[in-house]
Amino acid sequence: MTMQRVAIAGASGYAGGELARLLLMHPELEIGALTAASSAGSPLGAHQPHLPQLAARIIQETTPEMLAGHDVVFLALPHGQSAAIAAQLDESDTVIVDCGADHRLADPAAWAEFYGGAHAGTWPYGLPELPGQRDILKAARRIAVPGCYPTAVTLALFPAFAEGLAEPDVVVVAATGTSGAGKALKPNLLGSEVMGSVSAYGVGGVHRHTPEMEQNLSAVAGLPVTVAFTPMLAPMSRGILATCTAPATPGLTAAALRDAYESALKDEPFVTLLPEGVWPATAMTYGANTAALQVTLDERAGRVVAVIAIDNLTKGTAGGAIQSVNLALGLPEGLGLPLNGVAP
Amino acid sequence: MTMQRVAIAGASGYAGGELARLLLMHPELEIGALTAASSAGSPLGAHQPHLPQLAARIIQETTPEMLAGHDVVFLALPHGQSAAIAAQLDESDTVIVDCGADHRLADPAAWAEFYGGAHAGTWPYGLPELPGQRDILKAARRIAVPGCYPTAVTLALFPAFAEGLAEPDVVVVAATGTSGAGKALKPNLLGSEVMGSVSAYGVGGVHRHTPEMEQNLSAVAGLPVTVAFTPMLAPMSRGILATCTAPATPGLTAAALRDAYESALKDEPFVTLLPEGVWPATAMTYGANTAALQVTLDERAGRVVAVIAIDNLTKGTAGGAIQSVNLALGLPEGLGLPLNGVAP
Amino acid sequence: MTMQRVAIAGASGYAGGELARLLLMHPELEIGALTAASSAGSPLGAHQPHLPQLAARIIQETTPEMLAGHDVVFLALPHGQSAAIAAQLDESDTVIVDCGADHRLADPAAWAEFYGGAHAGTWPYGLPELPGQRDILKAARRIAVPGCYPTAVTLALFPAFAEGLAEPDVVVVAATGTSGAGKALKPNLLGSEVMGSVSAYGVGGVHRHTPEMEQNLSAVAGLPVTVAFTPMLAPMSRGILATCTAPATPGLTAAALRDAYESALKDEPFVTLLPEGVWPATAMTYGANTAALQVTLDERAGRVVAVIAIDNLTKGTAGGAIQSVNLALGLPEGLGLPLNGVAP
Amino acid sequence: MTMQRVAIAGASGYAGGELARLLLMHPELEIGALTAASSAGSPLGAHQPHLPQLAARIIQETTPEMLAGHDVVFLALPHGQSAAIAAQLDESDTVIVDCGADHRLADPAAWAEFYGGAHAGTWPYGLPELPGQRDILKAARRIAVPGCYPTAVTLALFPAFAEGLAEPDVVVVAATGTSGAGKALKPNLLGSEVMGSVSAYGVGGVHRHTPEMEQNLSAVAGLPVTVAFTPMLAPMSRGILATCTAPATPGLTAAALRDAYESALKDEPFVTLLPEGVWPATAMTYGANTAALQVTLDERAGRVVAVIAIDNLTKGTAGGAIQSVNLALGLPEGLGLPLNGVAP
Repeated sequence: MTMQRVAIAGASGYAGGELARLLLMHPELEIGALTAASSAGSPLGAHQPHLPQLAARIIQETTPEMLAGHDVVFLALPHGQSAAIAAQLDESDTVIVDCGADHRLADPAAWAEFYGGAHAGTWPYGLPELPGQRDILKAARRIAVPGCYPTAVTLALFPAFAEGLAEPDVVVVAATGTSGAGKALKPNLLGSEVMGSVSAYGVGGVHRHTPEMEQNLSAVAGLPVTVAFTPMLAPMSRGILATCTAPATPGLTAAALRDAYESALKDEPFVTLLPEGVWPATAMTYGANTAALQVTLDERAGRVVAVIAIDNLTKGTAGGAIQSVNLALGLPEGLGLPLNGVAP
Repeated sequence: MTMQRVAIAGASGYAGGELARLLLMHPELEIGALTAASSAGSPLGAHQPHLPQLAARIIQETTPEMLAGHDVVFLALPHGQSAAIAAQLDESDTVIVDCGADHRLADPAAWAEFYGGAHAGTWPYGLPELPGQRDILKAARRIAVPGCYPTAVTLALFPAFAEGLAEPDVVVVAATGTSGAGKALKPNLLGSEVMGSVSAYGVGGVHRHTPEMEQNLSAVAGLPVTVAFTPMLAPMSRGILATCTAPATPGLTAAALRDAYESALKDEPFVTLLPEGVWPATAMTYGANTAALQVTLDERAGRVVAVIAIDNLTKGTAGGAIQSVNLALGLPEGLGLPLNGVAP
Repeated sequence: MTMQRVAIAGASGYAGGELARLLLMHPELEIGALTAASSAGSPLGAHQPHLPQLAARIIQETTPEMLAGHDVVFLALPHGQSAAIAAQLDESDTVIVDCGADHRLADPAAWAEFYGGAHAGTWPYGLPELPGQRDILKAARRIAVPGCYPTAVTLALFPAFAEGLAEPDVVVVAATGTSGAGKALKPNLLGSEVMGSVSAYGVGGVHRHTPEMEQNLSAVAGLPVTVAFTPMLAPMSRGILATCTAPATPGLTAAALRDAYESALKDEPFVTLLPEGVWPATAMTYGANTAALQVTLDERAGRVVAVIAIDNLTKGTAGGAIQSVNLALGLPEGLGLPLNGVAP
Repeated sequence: MTMQRVAIAGASGYAGGELARLLLMHPELEIGALTAASSAGSPLGAHQPHLPQLAARIIQETTPEMLAGHDVVFLALPHGQSAAIAAQLDESDTVIVDCGADHRLADPAAWAEFYGGAHAGTWPYGLPELPGQRDILKAARRIAVPGCYPTAVTLALFPAFAEGLAEPDVVVVAATGTSGAGKALKPNLLGSEVMGSVSAYGVGGVHRHTPEMEQNLSAVAGLPVTVAFTPMLAPMSRGILATCTAPATPGLTAAALRDAYESALKDEPFVTLLPEGVWPATAMTYGANTAALQVTLDERAGRVVAVIAIDNLTKGTAGGAIQSVNLALGLPEGLGLPLNGVAP
């Protein structure tokens, strides 16, 4: 079988770099065009020095012509830019993967409220673990990669909502590493500001990933789920640790909760329900396409508490994207994706 | 006026070291005995090399005799040890300050459930910002220093509960630096494990600080408040960032919420309500006896969301302890306590 | 005695913030004008949120008029800007302190080679520990604050060179925290790039602090000293750890080396020669105006090895500056300066 | 071809974990016995939670019987233990790989001085890049894996000494992450102590890796080379950045130096000579079996300055070990070894 060729638009950014790192380990996909905007013309090595295998490759400008002729095109671009370029890539056989937000939200009103501007429409949502989603992705030629936080939160809570074990009044607090904010040169992202400090941001229901979490959990629950979401920035480059809680439905026992999670996750290759008593750490998933999950019943407070760790760049973006592409191309879902992390 | 002499039991630990650092800056308190258990006999410099002014002082063994004859005795000892030694210090004029948990909880059942063993009884609670607490502390000769998490959570939510703006169903998720766990040699506290990783622990209502938070907020609210508390360990030495949420009472507006916080905090020297739109970072309070607080109304989810940053060793332990001692000694409440942090 | 008024130009930067933090603790100096360039007009709290005591102060534009009328003016400006503004401040009684490089180098050729442009001339060098320098500073009205690396390296090696114990062929490798690079928005200073990584920069004799080290050590040695200097960036906000080595002169013994250091440093309030066998860590000096120093003789390799830790913002910049100002104003040299650090 | 079976003794430690992580990606080697001492009987997941593929594997006790019957045995044990167990493994066909120090030093006197106790003798040295070493390793059934620091320093300087471009008076200062110290529960390795701080240790020619560096460079140079080595601990889990300098031989030009390095390294798959002007960062090699190297001539000081970054656990231990094993087994040298790192 011939290798299939993939292009990466946004190759000089963090998501683009992680796509390249993972694709270099993939036995059926080979890297074609690497494109970007302001860094076009420079070698990839100047932006991704951890990838010596691609150091001499010259970054091209992101244009429809440059991205044409590939089997898969990954768009790792700032929000709002992927819809524009995707609209010019009308090759229907190409698998086009939007790692940005442009095609995630089904509700135009939510798009308008949280992102603004014209709504680009919805593409098949690239979270294979969502009930029923694998079959959709196998037939997909357009894939909307979930946001990193919604990936974590949805994986943490879908088993509870699928079985009606939690009330739809979710509270999530999640810590993320700085790579989630990209390479933008902002004062609050300087190492001097970040190291030794945890800070809050996007508090009060204003973070753009909020409606996406609600969309996913509402679909699973079959009724409207509200999420009060607070993100925080932690002094690390990678990783999300999300604490996701919801009121337990009356009569729920710890054993029934555990059973539901074991049952929902037993065949999931990339979501590990940890042994009882072991709690997730982001280090468990560093560089891996995995989620480490634990759930318990806080009987005192009457809440389901699920805690999950992922690598925001791997399972949360690039790895999750490749997992969906594997399905779309008819390849084994886990092909080329690391199960084991890099630690300590 | 003569300086008053203070002893520190537990001088080789992190809380003891922070007490010493702050006391060296205090104009009316001078350091007498420095005691500890296993490190007795060695110079303080071997354990607290950041305190050159005390480097040559020899650590004594923690005994009633060694602690006798001081105006103030700080007990910075593992839980369970302070009650035992305090019982042997029967000088009624001495201000005895328990930086551990032994005298915090009023409810023997909560003590039994979360700590086990005999309940030592309750001492005046060293959180001057709690309504009515300053007067109690001015007359106190025994002070129970609050836990670091309860300090943060109580300061973040008391204005809301004092005014009946929130329902008593609290969800708190807080990140802490590693110094909160002390110098215990545990594998999960090794630098290799901690750096680059955020991890959860004590999940599901089992953390010992939970009943203390409930005790404080219930007292303010005048009705039982339940707290679902999840702590996490972040890759930094100091600091707590706590996100504290509760359902808003019907009809609450953002403006009314802000007003209540401004009103409750306008005369508090150590709690800063940040300008609107600015969110706390632990770096704002590094080494300072301050809390940086922000509050908002998540109208989408109908919740009050208060986020607070403190330094767990300063306002969360040693600084808060000295603040209460200042009151007990009739000194200005803020004497000798740093208002400004060390950053970046 | 009336407090003397000081102005800080560059108050929104890291050096300016550290000056403000320290001056707030100083009993004889009070803060007057706070000025800056692009951040003029905004409150200081937006840039230095760790300084709540100054949060509401509005930053003024850096102009001669704004800086006039103070007893002391600190210029914490990018290299090349302080000479320009200083030239316009012709009040001869004012103590003007250049925290930048403009007035450090005596040799115009070295200035031209390493900085370029016109040489502004030399001011009294603000390192009181240099033999003979205290008396010069007591009479000074202009002070050139040493670079952070030269402060560390000079303190580490001057006792050896003053006594002729080392050959003038120095090799220095030093790790620094990111605050030394300031708040400039450069990709390599982003938290994502810095955390978890140590990197080299300015290698091969090109770092601008090189001629300043050579100037200092040559003056002490009385003969030309060459320094091969390599800096590296470490994942921390503050601190310099410098390993400074030079060939031992023939016949030097470890005991004689130790004696020379003890003798040279025994009356220095801010330089601690650690007990034998204890090696410096930057955490020993975090936020303090101190240096922690150790020296040994590598008998195998025949080299003197001195290792020193300082806080680049405190002893390395702002604290060292205030130490010199204390001398110039006839105040006790250590007035208001912290001897103890913040740790852990 | 059948997979060859490998055993790992010391599987619960950091080196053992890295061996397991890499072997899981190796197409021709499969993991057999996993053994350890105190953690025998527990599942590997309790010690290496980043390796979910092996989480349920039970750790066996390290005994000759348990290690028997494998094609390759990796001994990732504390110094002194590998020689004892190796002596009991007398299967001459098995490739036995000592990741400890027991078989590195040829000189019994150096062993006695730096390690003490009986000298176990010398095994073929597992650094394929050393001139002539590949052929030795192809025939080897016993392999002594180099120390992490000697790996870095030897790779950085061998091109200079092989061509006689440097004088044999080397000064090395290297920063390392904490994983190099293993999982030992020592106070100075606690996260609270390590984060935010760089510290020196093993200063003055006493670090055990010193004679190993001298052994390697002397062999290349053909004359005795002395190394003055100072290590320091940096706040990161992984990585070594070593600055290696030596006096340039008279008449050396920058161009000749560059040429010599390009020539020596042009066919080395795992050592990247960076483009001129780019300096190494440990992040370039995180989790990869690579070294990132740069060299320059400090003309001012007359020294060759080579700076190199490696991951101490990968190229510095486990990856380097597998690279040598590949040679010993007749496999392609780079089989299964990652060329690209994980960043940011």
